[in-house]
Amino acid sequence: MSTRKEGVYWIFAERCGLNDIPGSSSYDSYMKSLLICANGDNELTQAERDWIVGYASALGAPDQVVEKLKTYPADEADEDIDSVISRDAAANASRRYLVYDAIRACSADGEYSSGERETVTKMAAKVGVDAEIVKQIEEICTEEAKLREKRLALLFPTGSPL
Amino acid sequence: MSTRKEGVYWIFAERCGLNDIPGSSSYDSYMKSLLICANGDNELTQAERDWIVGYASALGAPDQVVEKLKTYPADEADEDIDSVISRDAAANASRRYLVYDAIRACSADGEYSSGERETVTKMAAKVGVDAEIVKQIEEICTEEAKLREKRLALLFPTGSPL
Repeated sequence: MSTRKEGVYWIFAERCGLNDIPGSSSYDSYMKSLLICANGDNELTQAERDWIVGYASALGAPDQVVEKLKTYPADEADEDIDSVISRDAAANASRRYLVYDAIRACSADGEYSSGERETVTKMAAKVGVDAEIVKQIEEICTEEAKLREKRLALLFPTGSPL
Repeated sequence: MSTRKEGVYWIFAERCGLNDIPGSSSYDSYMKSLLICANGDNELTQAERDWIVGYASALGAPDQVVEKLKTYPADEADEDIDSVISRDAAANASRRYLVYDAIRACSADGEYSSGERETVTKMAAKVGVDAEIVKQIEEICTEEAKLREKRLALLFPTGSPL
């Protein structure tokens, strides 16, 4: 196995509890759906797109998939989210994970606004994730963000070294 | 920037709150120290070493650094942890982070035993992280592990797709 691949296995196990890594079509389907979900009514900021592009790269998406994400229109009118995520079995089985990642992407510019919340809830409904589940996912995101702050304050008491 | 590098920036920002990525000598110094810390009294299991190797790869360590970690003896009698972590400024400023990562590595085979806890506490003292701080870091690791379980149960209600 290439050293790169060892890291991809590591991050999927650590982050998502997966024992295998996705194929190229899973990345393509999932990451495009994530862009559509975060875009909602064409509100995607550059910081949010950059977050998704960086995330795809960190997860080991093939270079050509990552490159496509940089300019993918992510327009629901053009390609609807339900059919994009349905294209691949592993992506299709990760619909709630998509909502979680969309919330994190929408928080990438510092704030998860009430407008973004509305958009995510609307897009979540399109992939069959109802508002009550979205709320539970949001709560987990909030808990994680707080715990991350607490952890970094403890681990880097005099500020981050880089 | 290569697509690979975009992912490395992403993971350091996301995970560690860093705005830049380390150089090769930082990876070398930090990851060797992590192996020494987790090894303690020569108790490092293969699962723990694999975790550290995968982690280094996920963080974008150069291939030759990752390869070296696979066989690095990690023996405190041979190279003492304080001098290994002191070799690089960014690694040197990440001593508490090292303890956090050592606890995660020691949990890689499912359990963070009382023996491992003793070892980590002893090695932490050698890099100037006192027992009270180790305890606080352990508490954060426990909270994170619980939150991760809760998140994955919510996001993959019928089990992981891969």
